[in-house]
Amino acid sequence: MFKASLLASGSRNAKILGQTFIVKANVGSFDKGVETVNGKKVNGVHLGDKRGIGSQEYSYHEPDDRGVLLGRFVEKRYVYRQTFAIRSYEIGPDKTATMETLMNLLQETALNHVTSAGLAGNGFGATHEMSLRKLIWVVTRIHVQVEKYSSWGDVVEIDTWVNAAGKNGMRRDYIIRDYVSQKIITRATSTWVIMNRETRRLSKIPDEVRNEVTPFYLDRDAIATENIDHEKIKKLTDETAVRIRPGIAPSWSDMDANQHINNVKYIGWILEVSISPS
Amino acid sequence: MFKASLLASGSRNAKILGQTFIVKANVGSFDKGVETVNGKKVNGVHLGDKRGIGSQEYSYHEPDDRGVLLGRFVEKRYVYRQTFAIRSYEIGPDKTATMETLMNLLQETALNHVTSAGLAGNGFGATHEMSLRKLIWVVTRIHVQVEKYSSWGDVVEIDTWVNAAGKNGMRRDYIIRDYVSQKIITRATSTWVIMNRETRRLSKIPDEVRNEVTPFYLDRDAIATENIDHEKIKKLTDETAVRIRPGIAPSWSDMDANQHINNVKYIGWILEVSISPS
Repeated sequence: MFKASLLASGSRNAKILGQTFIVKANVGSFDKGVETVNGKKVNGVHLGDKRGIGSQEYSYHEPDDRGVLLGRFVEKRYVYRQTFAIRSYEIGPDKTATMETLMNLLQETALNHVTSAGLAGNGFGATHEMSLRKLIWVVTRIHVQVEKYSSWGDVVEIDTWVNAAGKNGMRRDYIIRDYVSQKIITRATSTWVIMNRETRRLSKIPDEVRNEVTPFYLDRDAIATENIDHEKIKKLTDETAVRIRPGIAPSWSDMDANQHINNVKYIGWILEVSISPS
Repeated sequence: MFKASLLASGSRNAKILGQTFIVKANVGSFDKGVETVNGKKVNGVHLGDKRGIGSQEYSYHEPDDRGVLLGRFVEKRYVYRQTFAIRSYEIGPDKTATMETLMNLLQETALNHVTSAGLAGNGFGATHEMSLRKLIWVVTRIHVQVEKYSSWGDVVEIDTWVNAAGKNGMRRDYIIRDYVSQKIITRATSTWVIMNRETRRLSKIPDEVRNEVTPFYLDRDAIATENIDHEKIKKLTDETAVRIRPGIAPSWSDMDANQHINNVKYIGWILEVSISPS
């Protein structure tokens, strides 16, 4: 059901500095439409190395531990920000954060964004109106550009915001800064569409859902659009795969709260292929 | 090299409320001595459901995010405290924190304790004097009693402290509280000995190392000693194993910063055995 392509160098080192890490899911019949979504030129503001306009205006800040631990809105509620210390078990043999860790932290920030916006229904990031209709978000594309991997004990600050992606998609962007230097060390963008969790068919965004999320839309690109689509990902088949690693099987502990295996686990498996001796 | 026994009910549900979860490593020739360490009656204070004496005296508190994210000393530097929000990817299908998550958070708090105490050498929790002598800590026994598993978004507060365990061991205890209710939801104790990382032989604690750690010793038991040793763990062999799950192999991503696989991964594998259909 889920196939993923990894666009990266042939190196066995899964950490490719200054290069692009793109994962794209083939989610069936809607796939063509999604590519069109990605192909669409969006007149967004490209965020440079300086912080965004108004980033100092904290509209919401809990003074206690919970506020720091769970994140808060900045920039008049268009941007959600959460800080994380990289933990001892989130680093790899090279003592820096793994790609899985980065993806997990992005996911966590995004979910807390939805919850803090008052939109969270009964699922993982689904809004109230989505939950009523048994709809869930599925990711079709994630593009992560890492400039620097953080070390154990480093604190990172993650900003995330959402925007439209064509008619039936949502784009979610992320910036990771080193907390001390305030330098941007990672940029990421992702595209999400809506699926019915029972029929497993993709769905248009219902107006009620659009009305929930549109007030939060911010037209700003973490990765300039012209840099997103110049490398098309070929459809992944046994023939086009550069490397095949058999023997990776889901374990019980891979299941998340939706009782399915989410995209981050797949990233881990893909990287396992790319770093294992073949 | 590392064998582990899981003492738990035969249930396939790896979460056993109000029961005991003990993991004990067989680390070779020193094993007998370690059991003696565990068998020794320690006249410790048994911590009840009330908080310890002086727990409100924060001797150290960073006002910014880093302080909250990395922990701080309480109780005149005898106890180290760190708060964590349970994250979306740290929960299992039942939407509560997994045992691996708990173990990871305990490890993280312990390591930050060593670092904040100014003792950290160049390894994972090794002191300066240990690093000079190529010595590392190895865990021989962990005993975790879970009363309640936290849910996604819950904040937990972990206290940890150390004490002597016989002549050549160190005991590290932990209390996990729910941050909001301040109720104790988990208690844990562990025993550590010192190994030479090159010869892989167990070592006595050198006087210089003892002098580093002794000032931090606190004679208080998270789990009353009389409750620790009444259930002896049988040596694990193919004959005594209740269940054998083949096909679990370490992957590259299982390696930690010491380029080895630490005890938490083994716990995950043990639980994988206990929750998989046999």
